[in-house]
Formats: sequence, structure tokens, C-alpha cells
Amino acid sequence: MPKRPRILVCNDDGIDAPGIAALVKEMRRLGEVTVVAPHQQQSAVGHAITMNSPLRVRKYYKHGRFFGHAVSGTPADCVKIAVRAILKRRPDLVVSGVNHGSNTAISIIYSGTVSAATEGTILGIPSIAVSLTTYAPADFSVAAQFARRIASTVLRRGLPEGTLLNVNVPPLPARRIKGSRITRQGKAIWNDTFDARRDPANKEYYWLTGGLQNVDRDLVYDEAAVRAGYISVSPIQYDLTDLAMMEVMKRWPGLGRQTRVKRRPGAPTRRAKRYPRA
Amino acid sequence: MPKRPRILVCNDDGIDAPGIAALVKEMRRLGEVTVVAPHQQQSAVGHAITMNSPLRVRKYYKHGRFFGHAVSGTPADCVKIAVRAILKRRPDLVVSGVNHGSNTAISIIYSGTVSAATEGTILGIPSIAVSLTTYAPADFSVAAQFARRIASTVLRRGLPEGTLLNVNVPPLPARRIKGSRITRQGKAIWNDTFDARRDPANKEYYWLTGGLQNVDRDLVYDEAAVRAGYISVSPIQYDLTDLAMMEVMKRWPGLGRQTRVKRRPGAPTRRAKRYPRA
Repeated sequence: MPKRPRILVCNDDGIDAPGIAALVKEMRRLGEVTVVAPHQQQSAVGHAITMNSPLRVRKYYKHGRFFGHAVSGTPADCVKIAVRAILKRRPDLVVSGVNHGSNTAISIIYSGTVSAATEGTILGIPSIAVSLTTYAPADFSVAAQFARRIASTVLRRGLPEGTLLNVNVPPLPARRIKGSRITRQGKAIWNDTFDARRDPANKEYYWLTGGLQNVDRDLVYDEAAVRAGYISVSPIQYDLTDLAMMEVMKRWPGLGRQTRVKRRPGAPTRRAKRYPRA
Repeated sequence: MPKRPRILVCNDDGIDAPGIAALVKEMRRLGEVTVVAPHQQQSAVGHAITMNSPLRVRKYYKHGRFFGHAVSGTPADCVKIAVRAILKRRPDLVVSGVNHGSNTAISIIYSGTVSAATEGTILGIPSIAVSLTTYAPADFSVAAQFARRIASTVLRRGLPEGTLLNVNVPPLPARRIKGSRITRQGKAIWNDTFDARRDPANKEYYWLTGGLQNVDRDLVYDEAAVRAGYISVSPIQYDLTDLAMMEVMKRWPGLGRQTRVKRRPGAPTRRAKRYPRA
């Protein structure tokens, strides 16, 4: 572990959120902290990046002291611009959070918090996403303390290329947390419902709402573990290839590795109907 | 295959893009098509969903004929609201595209096109994302024809739960396409650079730019295959768990499956410093 590691802190709730303040406080005990975070809340942005508009970066002060760089973009933008333009030296670690709300099961793929840590990993930096699994007003200190503990371990041991950690902490006082568990992404998905309303001009609009359904019970899954009072630590990666399905598809007609797109016998060379209906 | 399958078509370039028009034309030869697509371009939105503002849906007409539903949201929003609120019956297939630009290698995780197909898969519907790998003005007809061919195969054979297909078509006339290949997600990442400029008020702003770097040469990877003139078909999935790393982490101190968060001997019960510095 570097003597005084450089730690980049990001989030998706915005640079003024209480969760990032708690995280920064703990990370400062581990190393040199730089905060680069969205200037506005960016929940559920997924792994969005900003390509069609320019980014602005301004200094953000808190109680009259410089706190960090506020970016007019997404969490992934923040990590990219931090590493590629703001920071003079490459960070040893990226920590994203503490998110106000759970990032388990299917929510991982919608999560701005996880996307910031994913972006760190893509850039070759060990990265951790940390979330507190409640939407109610909450104390982030226990989650931030665990973040420091796992960050310290990651600084010493490193992470494999392409792998990050997704940490979810239940909203319990430390004495009631049962421990931590190495988990995998749960299978639960959102039971989306759209709440249809009428605006004052009588035009319809919709609010997305809903909750997780089919939550796994086996504590090997992230959501089950946090619901049972454990801190969930999932190693995740972003090679989405379904290797087993690649094998199955080799038996699909017209899709094998050596298959050429066949021209129909006698078909003219330049007609549009090149791919006959299978 | 259902006699007249119901096909939901979405994209991320916006409902007025030429790529979706080409796709709709081909899909109408296969079944009953409903278009639900963003009313504005949504590139690189990742798997964003809209939770903090309401969604609007309006009917979109083309040459005086109803073409589809335009949604004030992301590609993932479109598929969610189509299946949960707009469509009377569940679609048999979701096809997203034809995207104007490549969705290979790391770009998959930034892709709105792929996120629409992923959302279909999450909702239990076989889904396909289709992209044409050029940013130059292009003819989408070859890509759309291949989309129909693979859609037809998927309607007959189905896809495993949780698996979608990510198709990338090189911008070549049909006769010059060498065939199709079953591929995996490439390892190439973006060499991001930030182009710093000054606005008329002399304030700095940044444009994200760059290109893919470290492109694999092995044709088993998506980007390599399209560069060599093949249509790339990758089966992908969204369980991000790194199973191998779960095993490694069982040997990490304080993180084993049975490990409880330890209280330091003699430490008071309610103090904040519950997690000693590792």
C-alpha cells in the first residue's frame, strides 16, 4: 500500500450530499483525497457519459473551505475528467458513494454510483462503490467506516484487472450489523409501474414507480444479505459476454464461425434483398 | 414462432432517425410492429432511467401516417413504458436500432441502443440490439435486412433467460460483407481526451473526445470482426458477478462468509469508530 495513497472520491447524489461528506471524512484518514462529483443529483443515470454537450468544472466550497470539483455531468464523466484532465497524478483508488439508496440486484445496471467505480476500473484503477440501503434520512457514518476498511484492504491487495467491488451496507447501527458477506448480484428485478396523471392543461404524463420483486432468499445474493443485516460485498466486472450461449449459437444456421453470408443462387448482385428470410 | 409476432422497436438516436425507419420497414415484413422511441437523440446514456421527472408520450407522425410513440426519456424508459403502459399485449420480441455508430467492446456499457434491448431482456422478452459501425452518412438497409434475419431466428429459437444479442454490422454493401461471426465483447477501451476551450466570457469548458484504443485482433472479438468485414453477433447478459473473485475474496481477512464485524475488545458499544483501521 502506498504510504499516502491518492484517493479519488465521486458519487451520484451530487457533491453536496451527506453521503459523500461522510465518505470523504473517512478517506482522509487513509490518504490524499480529491473529490470530483456531479454538481447535481444524477441517480439512475446508468453508465451515461456526456458527448453532445460540453462539461463545466467549478470549485465547490463547503463552510468556506475547498471541498472538491463539481462537474456538470454524470458520475462516469466525473471519473473520466478527473483522471484525464483534473488530477496531476493518477489516483491509487476510486471510491464512489456513499449512495443514499440500495444498489443491489438489477439496480446495479441503473446505478450512477456503480458506474463511477466501473469507470475507475476501466481506467485501470482499483475501485469501490458504496451504498447505504435506505431512502429514509440516514446516518452514513457506519457505511463510510466500512468503506475505509475495505478501501484499506483493496489498497494493500489490489483488485484483478476489470473487477470492482460493489458494497451495500444496511441502515443499522454498527452493533446490529451481523457482519459482512461476499455476495453475488441478486436476480430480483423492478416491478415497474407507471403512475399516469393529468397536468393542469389536461395532458397526460407518467411517473415511474415500483419496487424490487422476486427477491432471492439465499444470503449469497446481495439484496438478501443486506435484508438479513449483513454488509454485502460483491466483486463485479463488465465483460458482458455470455460464453455458454456462444457455444449454443454455433449450431444456429447461418451463424457459425466460418459461415459466409450466402448469396441466393441466381440473385442479382446489387439488389437490396440480400438476406433471404430465414 | 408466432404466426404474426408482435415486435417492439426502439432506438437511441431518436424516433426520427433513418436507422429506425430502415429497421421498422424490415420488421413489418416479420410481424406487427409498434415503435416506442425517444423523441430526442439519447446516445451514450447508458442504462439510464428517468425517475426524478415525469415522462411524456406523444404520437409521432411521418409523411402524415402514424409511425410510433415518442417518449421524453431514455431508451430504457421507452421499453419499460411500452411494455408496462402503452402496449395492450406483451411483445414477442424487442429490436433496438439500427444505431448510427458502433456498439462494440467497452462501448456496450455506454450504449443506449444496447440498454433498450437489455431492458427488454430484463422484462423477459427476447431482445436484439443492432448497430451500423460508422458515424458517416450511411445506408441502413443491409443492417436492417440482417436484423430481420436474426430476428426471425430468435423468434423461432428463443433466447435463454437473461441473454440478449448485440449485433454490429460493418458499413459495407452486402456483397462485400464476408459473413457473420459469433463474437465476444472486445477488450478495447476509449482513449478519452478532454478538449479544453474558453467560452466568450473566458470561462473554461471541456469536450469529451477520443477513439478506441488497444483493439483486439482476434476475430472472436466484436470490434475485430466488424473491422475485418464480418457482421458481429455477441450474446451478452447482465449478471455482472465476478464468480472467480468471490472465491479469492474468501481468503481476505474479515470478509469470509461466516465473518462477523468484530468489536474491538473493550471498545464502548456505541462509539462511531466501530471498524478499526485494517
